[in-house]
Amino acid sequence: MRQVAILGVGQTPVREHWDLSIRQLAVAAGRAAMADAGVERVDAIFVGNMTSGQLNQQHQLGALIADYLGQRGVEAVKLEAACGSAGSAMRQGLIGVASGEMDAVLVIGVEKMTESPARETTAALATAADADYEVVQGVSFVGLNALIMRRYMHQYGYQHQDFAPFALNAHANGAKNPNAMFQERISQKEYERGRVVADPITLYDASPIGDGAAALLLVPAEKAPQAVRVAGSASATDTLAVHDREDPLWLKAAEKSAHAAYTQANVTPDDVDLFELHDAFSVMAALSLEACGFAERGQGVRLAQAGAILPGGRIPISTMGGLKARGHPVGATGLYQLVETTLQLRGEAGAAQIDGIRIAMAQNIGGSGATVVTHVLQRT
Amino acid sequence: MRQVAILGVGQTPVREHWDLSIRQLAVAAGRAAMADAGVERVDAIFVGNMTSGQLNQQHQLGALIADYLGQRGVEAVKLEAACGSAGSAMRQGLIGVASGEMDAVLVIGVEKMTESPARETTAALATAADADYEVVQGVSFVGLNALIMRRYMHQYGYQHQDFAPFALNAHANGAKNPNAMFQERISQKEYERGRVVADPITLYDASPIGDGAAALLLVPAEKAPQAVRVAGSASATDTLAVHDREDPLWLKAAEKSAHAAYTQANVTPDDVDLFELHDAFSVMAALSLEACGFAERGQGVRLAQAGAILPGGRIPISTMGGLKARGHPVGATGLYQLVETTLQLRGEAGAAQIDGIRIAMAQNIGGSGATVVTHVLQRT
Repeated sequence: MRQVAILGVGQTPVREHWDLSIRQLAVAAGRAAMADAGVERVDAIFVGNMTSGQLNQQHQLGALIADYLGQRGVEAVKLEAACGSAGSAMRQGLIGVASGEMDAVLVIGVEKMTESPARETTAALATAADADYEVVQGVSFVGLNALIMRRYMHQYGYQHQDFAPFALNAHANGAKNPNAMFQERISQKEYERGRVVADPITLYDASPIGDGAAALLLVPAEKAPQAVRVAGSASATDTLAVHDREDPLWLKAAEKSAHAAYTQANVTPDDVDLFELHDAFSVMAALSLEACGFAERGQGVRLAQAGAILPGGRIPISTMGGLKARGHPVGATGLYQLVETTLQLRGEAGAAQIDGIRIAMAQNIGGSGATVVTHVLQRT
Repeated sequence: MRQVAILGVGQTPVREHWDLSIRQLAVAAGRAAMADAGVERVDAIFVGNMTSGQLNQQHQLGALIADYLGQRGVEAVKLEAACGSAGSAMRQGLIGVASGEMDAVLVIGVEKMTESPARETTAALATAADADYEVVQGVSFVGLNALIMRRYMHQYGYQHQDFAPFALNAHANGAKNPNAMFQERISQKEYERGRVVADPITLYDASPIGDGAAALLLVPAEKAPQAVRVAGSASATDTLAVHDREDPLWLKAAEKSAHAAYTQANVTPDDVDLFELHDAFSVMAALSLEACGFAERGQGVRLAQAGAILPGGRIPISTMGGLKARGHPVGATGLYQLVETTLQLRGEAGAAQIDGIRIAMAQNIGGSGATVVTHVLQRT
């Protein structure tokens, strides 16, 4: 297996893009990544997307995007693992290059959600949960996460306001990212007055949906010795239904995939300088920090309260806004995380730049922890 | 890259499976393939599926199926390329094993379509076409293929009845396959009296949708020296919109992927003893034979009329019923083709067995030729 490098990155702002179709979003990000890499022809395109069939009446995005990117004819396919789709696309693109089967691979995550009525979007998001045993009970996806958050508060003795540091950090960081959907800081008071979506989750605990696309151009590392290197890559799964898990407060797949990625990269959590985690809901940020070894069980919130997740802290998270403030175009998010991580490692994160980082991790989660893809990136 | 062998196959009959959910179908085929291979633990699962989001309100099939197959935790993801989804899943599974990243991979194609109202199924199938430039005109997927068939008849001077050999062969072969949806032969007269679906396509020119799952268990060839070998594998794309193609009667992606697979396998069309092609519509069978080098342009129908596609002919097709008679559970079809091809090469195709075959090809098509995945298999 060859080492793989990230030679180019591209992204669109996360917005309500009423003037751009799903193919246009994907093409914008893909072209940007190719231009950044100085590559005009790729061997394959892997697309991460979740809801295009339901919300855009469009399947077969691989071939469609290849055509509109000026790459008509190349191998192209879509990967889907709910909100973990883009991380999954990255993983397949990586294996394609690492294997020697492909020399230049474009990986694109894209999602266009805001054109659809809210009830359709809510139904589409619920397909990430178990249709036969969860959704049939009437629970929405945010409802499921509300149950998890309530359980976390009960088990570890937290109040709702204790989760504020996650939202405050994300919004403060989003304010430094011109591509973020929300670019305004929020205060503790605003957090505490957040409108309830599904008790105890308020608007400030839930990431917003959005339209957007992000892309990476992958090549063998020997062809790009200066480029950011993929040092670890792993994917793992867990039950879709939260009630089927031994412990609903432990992200087993996050632990498993992070551990595998650490081993490949020959690092420990202590070596990781930055962690773009999947903060779709504030409780998921806490659970990810715990499962990946940055905090003891039940201490993820305390880690945040201690300031460790801030830009100057021990383990900065959501440095460009995270899902919470950058926005969460579900099947594209995993690639936004990787684009942002790469920019940070290249020292090109602008006002959001974290100084002196060498090892960074991005973790993309599908469902309530059912598919977890972890990548460890390294500056060369 | 390592050589890859097919150690196990599994399938469910194609039916209206009112008593089985999508996960149950996938598990049945997956278990059968694992039992056939004598393998109890896999490293990864690649699922091919098209419409589960729309018709089953279920995404994230990878993790879901891994769990219900007793493989909780393993890497798992879904691949989607419309009706070419299962072939695409096979291709990723193959690269996974060939690369050395994985040692035992389960590839499953699954689709559950017959529970939904016809208008929903028709809308779901139309997502294989270009939503913004084709479907917006009101054309359905069968409507698009009707335009292609009409053009073919016009250009090459055929009558509708000339296409009969495709349907007659498929139904005669389906009668020998207990897993086929339709197991009755049809006559030339029945073909000519077929009810029109979208002129000139009648019921006998169109494959039926169905519920079903098919699976393969892949391992490195060195671990299974007696097993059927994957000698060639390639995927290519074309425009989604048929009107964007230089020639709507030429399947460029089929030609490209078949040529690449021939080259890898070091064979020519003359060496291929059996061709499981994507006869979603009878005109697509003709176009595939032409694009893959078995007939000159416009001569695919004549090849069929000459009997070359029959079990005893020069290039038998649809030997276990094809999409037309076995049935077309869209995102599962590519794996039914590969399971049937493997059974033929193992001499285990029962009444449908073709004698003395050594090299066989399976070709899975997404949309009207927009994604084409070709595999060449070889008996060892």
